[in-house]
Amino acid sequence: MKIALDAMGGDFGPPNIVGGAVMALGEYPRIEKLFLVGDTPRIEAELIKHGCHDGRVEIVHATQVVEMSDGAVDAVRRKKDSSVSRAVDLVKKGDADAIVSAGHTGAAVAATTIKLRTLPGIDRPGIAALIPSETNLFVLIDAGANSDARAEHLLQYAIMGEVYSRHVLGYKKPVIGLMSIGDEDVKGTGMTKEVFKMLKQSQLNFRGNIEGHDLFENPVEVVVCDGFVGNVVLKTCESVSEAVFRWLKHELLQSKVRMAGAYLARNAFRAIKKKLNYEEYGGMPLLGVNGICIIAHGASTPLAIKNALRVAAESIEQQVNPHIIEEVRRYHETTAPLEPALR
Amino acid sequence: MKIALDAMGGDFGPPNIVGGAVMALGEYPRIEKLFLVGDTPRIEAELIKHGCHDGRVEIVHATQVVEMSDGAVDAVRRKKDSSVSRAVDLVKKGDADAIVSAGHTGAAVAATTIKLRTLPGIDRPGIAALIPSETNLFVLIDAGANSDARAEHLLQYAIMGEVYSRHVLGYKKPVIGLMSIGDEDVKGTGMTKEVFKMLKQSQLNFRGNIEGHDLFENPVEVVVCDGFVGNVVLKTCESVSEAVFRWLKHELLQSKVRMAGAYLARNAFRAIKKKLNYEEYGGMPLLGVNGICIIAHGASTPLAIKNALRVAAESIEQQVNPHIIEEVRRYHETTAPLEPALR
Repeated sequence: MKIALDAMGGDFGPPNIVGGAVMALGEYPRIEKLFLVGDTPRIEAELIKHGCHDGRVEIVHATQVVEMSDGAVDAVRRKKDSSVSRAVDLVKKGDADAIVSAGHTGAAVAATTIKLRTLPGIDRPGIAALIPSETNLFVLIDAGANSDARAEHLLQYAIMGEVYSRHVLGYKKPVIGLMSIGDEDVKGTGMTKEVFKMLKQSQLNFRGNIEGHDLFENPVEVVVCDGFVGNVVLKTCESVSEAVFRWLKHELLQSKVRMAGAYLARNAFRAIKKKLNYEEYGGMPLLGVNGICIIAHGASTPLAIKNALRVAAESIEQQVNPHIIEEVRRYHETTAPLEPALR
Repeated sequence: MKIALDAMGGDFGPPNIVGGAVMALGEYPRIEKLFLVGDTPRIEAELIKHGCHDGRVEIVHATQVVEMSDGAVDAVRRKKDSSVSRAVDLVKKGDADAIVSAGHTGAAVAATTIKLRTLPGIDRPGIAALIPSETNLFVLIDAGANSDARAEHLLQYAIMGEVYSRHVLGYKKPVIGLMSIGDEDVKGTGMTKEVFKMLKQSQLNFRGNIEGHDLFENPVEVVVCDGFVGNVVLKTCESVSEAVFRWLKHELLQSKVRMAGAYLARNAFRAIKKKLNYEEYGGMPLLGVNGICIIAHGASTPLAIKNALRVAAESIEQQVNPHIIEEVRRYHETTAPLEPALR
């Protein structure tokens, strides 16, 4: 398999990205070709630093970088020679099977959507974040591709999230929850109430509205929300768990007895921290585009980039896109459109 | 001071509410009168259970209860004799200085808004949740009063949250952050971008957009968002911190060495759990209504109700409403309205 990696993306640029690429090349022999897209001298310097002479690496030069302050669609239109655009071009031409980017999320979404187009029946792609709970690993979709979503987009996220949960995570009949602010049908925004009716009418295994506190107490397999809410939830989860560990560390350092206790219990802390570490989960698939695109965390470490490349490799093997097309078609065949009066 | 307590609200009804009322009467001599509003026989039975014969208690009978499945505005219109409506009536008549309810949030918001009206210059009230970070206590507004908010509502939340942070929490020049999905001006929904411009133009101490991960890493004093997002964030924070402690407990029980470590470090865990315990913070003020209304957690324990009554007592003493009216007026005097073209 062949993967195009945006070597300029992410808060730390080529050092972390190329570092992760070198790790992945060492661990995953199934990668036949890895395109590193970006500024050739900087990429070469990083490869030399790692003593990497792997013949599977091919540098594809790109002169521009999308900055975090750029508008997403605008960046794709104006910066034709950006690393993310060139990486998507490689997929479009058929030279690569997937793209991985830790850069400007909106630009990666816009570049893939504009150049590769969406799948039949999908209006907007959605980012599927994988989040660990005590008992399962759930998909949160959309985690930030589309912040001005409409009801039909959320319905499409539910279908795509269900396919991903079933085909990639192996859940037999994934339970879908709609993120809202009350369990009851009457709670939510105008949009979520409309999505509620659509999901209720569908053949999906829909539990109903779920609230923030259900995420970990009473988890479902697929959490559906718009990209604004999903992005806030994802980053809030990371922030809270990190804060709890920081406070705990501070408290554990307040006395020698507590420190001794922390030392004895250190493996318990390690087990949890590993479970909560986003680096272990790597990248988030952008579902709904006609191709494979993996969005990595902006603050990706080399380990996170390595795991994002693993997610890309898995996505190439598992090919969920034909299943998404099939399920969207089945939804329209089996579900009558909502009467305008009911919406 | 005189407080009207909705004795039927909350997931557990009169036992927890009356239990909390009895605790508060014991601790706060400044409460001169506590109206317990709801079903007289059930309230009396709870008072007898606690051996409470406090002369400051007055039961106000109400025959109806707003159920969680009721629509908010509808419940206020149809159930004229509900406990929450009757409690608000006591404030309207001037018999009570504040209302506290752990029941249907939407109904409490609708009843106070319809019966007491909003303050001059405020279109919609917002719930101000207090959230502890490592270094401060921040206000999240709106935590769920209004899930279909417009840009001008968020501007009003910012002004109200700033007043609350300054006058009640004692911050000299509270920093305001707008919850969004990227630091940059160009990120967010159509609505948040409009709010961004309004806040930038105001004389508030506006830091700009903040993201989920800033909440605890790089906290501001006032987080502004719509009620849907705020409610999801609040409940997600609670859910994540509880999940981390549950997982940690599970891991700590895996071996005798870890258990010994946990025992030695137990005071560190207690310190954090106390800091994160919503029960300690009690209720959330509903800012922007022409009166004082405190929203308590639906799952309130007696301790949480006691603290909600404390928050009500503090709000009666501190009287932030005149300051809110003043700041809204000052905003309009010093800030030119945005040109339609800029919005």
